[in-house]
Amino acid sequence: MTSTPVLASTREELSGLLSGARRSGEPVAFVPTMGALHAGHASLMRTARAATAGPVVVSIFVNPMQFAPTEDLDRYPRTLDADLEVCAAEGVDVVFAPSVDEMYAGGFSHDSVRDGVTVAPGQLATILDGASRPGHFDGVLTVVAKLFGLVRPDVAVFGQKDYQQLVLVRRMVRDLCLGIEVVGAETVREPDGLALSSRNRYLDAGERRVAGALSRALRAAQDRAPYGVPAARWAAMSVLKEAATDGLELDYLALTSPDLGEPPETGEGRILVAARVGSTRLIDNMPIVFDRIAPDARPAGTASAASTTS
Amino acid sequence: MTSTPVLASTREELSGLLSGARRSGEPVAFVPTMGALHAGHASLMRTARAATAGPVVVSIFVNPMQFAPTEDLDRYPRTLDADLEVCAAEGVDVVFAPSVDEMYAGGFSHDSVRDGVTVAPGQLATILDGASRPGHFDGVLTVVAKLFGLVRPDVAVFGQKDYQQLVLVRRMVRDLCLGIEVVGAETVREPDGLALSSRNRYLDAGERRVAGALSRALRAAQDRAPYGVPAARWAAMSVLKEAATDGLELDYLALTSPDLGEPPETGEGRILVAARVGSTRLIDNMPIVFDRIAPDARPAGTASAASTTS
Repeated sequence: MTSTPVLASTREELSGLLSGARRSGEPVAFVPTMGALHAGHASLMRTARAATAGPVVVSIFVNPMQFAPTEDLDRYPRTLDADLEVCAAEGVDVVFAPSVDEMYAGGFSHDSVRDGVTVAPGQLATILDGASRPGHFDGVLTVVAKLFGLVRPDVAVFGQKDYQQLVLVRRMVRDLCLGIEVVGAETVREPDGLALSSRNRYLDAGERRVAGALSRALRAAQDRAPYGVPAARWAAMSVLKEAATDGLELDYLALTSPDLGEPPETGEGRILVAARVGSTRLIDNMPIVFDRIAPDARPAGTASAASTTS
Repeated sequence: MTSTPVLASTREELSGLLSGARRSGEPVAFVPTMGALHAGHASLMRTARAATAGPVVVSIFVNPMQFAPTEDLDRYPRTLDADLEVCAAEGVDVVFAPSVDEMYAGGFSHDSVRDGVTVAPGQLATILDGASRPGHFDGVLTVVAKLFGLVRPDVAVFGQKDYQQLVLVRRMVRDLCLGIEVVGAETVREPDGLALSSRNRYLDAGERRVAGALSRALRAAQDRAPYGVPAARWAAMSVLKEAATDGLELDYLALTSPDLGEPPETGEGRILVAARVGSTRLIDNMPIVFDRIAPDARPAGTASAASTTS
């Protein structure tokens, strides 16, 4: 199962490594990452590996354009050697780990990049994480477009963990006719429910306990979703308010449709949360199914059944 | 020499027609147009035909996103039958002529498209035609990106006539790593120098005579360019001011570097003009080579020599 991926650090090396696959018509599967790889990334790679007999490409690039000047770009963990081992264990063929200058010719600055041609993410980038992190999704979609241009994948795998990013990448592929199949892979969680994230390593032991409130809030909402959107929201807020006394600062809790519009009264939706624990900003989300069962009309035990199937 | 191109009006038809070429690895050459084809377009097609033994694809799509609500979208000429004959005569293999709904799923409106993901053209789209036509190049680059996504060409041919568009498309290909060779084909002109344009058919006989001033102004500037940028500008303005008495309304005259920055004191540059004649907006541009020869240091006859070699 274990092979050694080839490391490409320039566009030319990448292009050379993929030219054979291009000629033979084998589909290329792609997993873009910022490195600091964990079991969540490994799961994305397994999804990619299962999607093609051709090459699986993983990119490792901490993209400065998606970090605001005040954010954690410099602090973001870089663990290339360990990352390559994760890729090897998952049968990845090519790891593309370019320098900033390789991805942004002439060097990166927010101003110089915005002087050039970028991807404008539109309305969906003005809400949720986009409201808290202005310009974040311009940076995400621009670098994903660049990586798509260099790798030219047939399939690209993104985690549902970054749900708004996943929705926006799908939208970009549709609106710019990129012809790439975008697969959203399920979030991998710690035993207490905390979604795996490269930023979890910022948390100290006390913060780590508090961070568990995010997934508990989402699950509480799933349990109450059969009683409608307001009941689900109330259930999540109860958990988050309790955690606030332990130092959790809520950024947003949002109940939406699957494509981040208004939540439906009944049927499938999404619940998303962002909060700061200490100096670390964490996000999480889950699918949720709303209904309008009146409390007294509902048989006992249905809530926990809804919880276990979600 | 003459073959009959296959007409595709949906993405699926286009994709089906190109799948054979994709599998065989033959390069695809692409000429995006808005139809109303003339000898200038035919020249682009010949350039594309010469660039590949594989398929030449021409798109015909009057892109609503690059027209402001006040502009000539409805009036823009549509001449599909004649266009197909031009394509046939130039050995084009595939003509892609999609509907607006085919290119903008759910139908086009400026607001709905801007809610989605588009291409942001950056600083170069704020000057010249971009200053006169806000949003124009957002529309151009977005539809070109979509067409590139659907056709996936190896080579794309654009006219130098729309010079700012050519510079911006090259910039998009570079900044978004699209891996497409962009060829800029020389402008085809009427005997009096007027650049061919689908909009020339809007001109009545008197306007047609006045329109000749654009290319005459550019050539006058080329003649005086050995004396420096101010002398070249003055020469062009003299011609344009005279034409103003016949009703030509100047929008801009710009002397720039080849990539539309500040003009160099010596060496290659570009001169660009836009003006309204009657209700028709016309643009033109030419290469220009600046020098700093003092008038008294310059041998007689050099000016006209500079003119004939440009």
